[in-house]
Amino acid sequence: MATLGKIGRYDFLSEPFHCDFSKKLFMGHLGNHLLNAADFHSNDRDFGMNYLNPIHKTWVLSRLAIEMDDMPAAYEKFSVETWVESALRFFTNRNFRICSTDDSRTYGYGKSVWAMIDTETRQPLNILAIRDGEIERYIEKDKECPIEGLSRVKMGKEAKLARTIDTHYCDVDVNGHINSIKYIEHILDLFDIDHYRKFRIRRFDIAYVAESYCGDKLNFYTEERDDDTVCVRVTKTNAETVDAEVVRCMLKFEKI
Amino acid sequence: MATLGKIGRYDFLSEPFHCDFSKKLFMGHLGNHLLNAADFHSNDRDFGMNYLNPIHKTWVLSRLAIEMDDMPAAYEKFSVETWVESALRFFTNRNFRICSTDDSRTYGYGKSVWAMIDTETRQPLNILAIRDGEIERYIEKDKECPIEGLSRVKMGKEAKLARTIDTHYCDVDVNGHINSIKYIEHILDLFDIDHYRKFRIRRFDIAYVAESYCGDKLNFYTEERDDDTVCVRVTKTNAETVDAEVVRCMLKFEKI
Repeated sequence: MATLGKIGRYDFLSEPFHCDFSKKLFMGHLGNHLLNAADFHSNDRDFGMNYLNPIHKTWVLSRLAIEMDDMPAAYEKFSVETWVESALRFFTNRNFRICSTDDSRTYGYGKSVWAMIDTETRQPLNILAIRDGEIERYIEKDKECPIEGLSRVKMGKEAKLARTIDTHYCDVDVNGHINSIKYIEHILDLFDIDHYRKFRIRRFDIAYVAESYCGDKLNFYTEERDDDTVCVRVTKTNAETVDAEVVRCMLKFEKI
Repeated sequence: MATLGKIGRYDFLSEPFHCDFSKKLFMGHLGNHLLNAADFHSNDRDFGMNYLNPIHKTWVLSRLAIEMDDMPAAYEKFSVETWVESALRFFTNRNFRICSTDDSRTYGYGKSVWAMIDTETRQPLNILAIRDGEIERYIEKDKECPIEGLSRVKMGKEAKLARTIDTHYCDVDVNGHINSIKYIEHILDLFDIDHYRKFRIRRFDIAYVAESYCGDKLNFYTEERDDDTVCVRVTKTNAETVDAEVVRCMLKFEKI
């Protein structure tokens, strides 16, 4: 079998029903394509879910940042390149480049952090122990990902409750948790459509802090900064817990 | 250029983030794949959106029925075959078959009805006038689609209000209307997750009666039949109208 390169490249279509009123891809659907690219890349190289799930291990997305100059328009084909920038014992850094299929144009970049857990104990696992450190064969340090790194979103206590929602069947993923992409959609929905007529999202940063489950109420607290930046804290409320943080997010808007 | 056959066939992946807790594709995402297949088929044959949109015309989905023996599992590749069964002046009937990529297994079938409108006047157009009746070259009457036809869902006045929701940015499609697929998701969300542990959806029938817009409140009325069938009427409420019907739907459940 030919050895695969360090960088994976996957083509996607900006599907018409995945585009917003401006006929550009929704940020949530782009996020889904990045997660798919990560999945394909790791499966193709034998450290993905296909190998991990039967041995009761799984990758868990911890952080994701997407920074875009523009979004693919409806019906446009585009490519996602992805590679592992570094792998530590308990975390790996994976980058993304979103570009036109002919490579003539870069739409933007992404950065992400992943952990690995045991699906039974939910405890973190040593990534470097998987297949004798197979992932280290694929570390690519030289490819550029020229966006700011992932940094912890700081929020004060004065964030105001913008919305509380119930979670339902379609919010839940294959693991029984609220779907990572659905959080993004619920966060985008905090801003009314007129806001998106005036601003586009330049950067979207999300940290997945804890899991929530179907039936949990999700509370969305927002804190506006003076520079077109809005921070969002999502907490869950259920029979056992009140207002426990599950997601923290930062959106940087840019005037259109 | 080689002439294309009457039946189009397109491959899709049952993406992990598009699957529910049972690790099977969500009905809403399957619906999206069927609409994509319809789009690809008509574009490939020169009577699709790529030809119509620049001349201010568009296809409008009027009805869709999906009947499934099973759903593709996470990571499974599957194919959607689609063909035009008939074309009348103001409506065309398009069928679907959902199968494994090697054709050894049929998951289910779909039927749909489409109209064509002028995007400026919103008036219906004569489908047979497009490119001198180009669509008629592709009518396929012989291919089997062995599910019940589309029939009008009858509902009494006693349907009870199950939920009212606000519509937001992510609910809106490229035309500024509430996205056809999002209605399906909101309807699936009327049933709690325990219901889906006991029942699977055998058939999903939806009729798009009128358009709704971002900011409209959507009211979901349900009426249970004695045979595992639930009918749903969706109405919109906004500054101009109260409780005007936009969607009517029927779900047939089957014990797992």
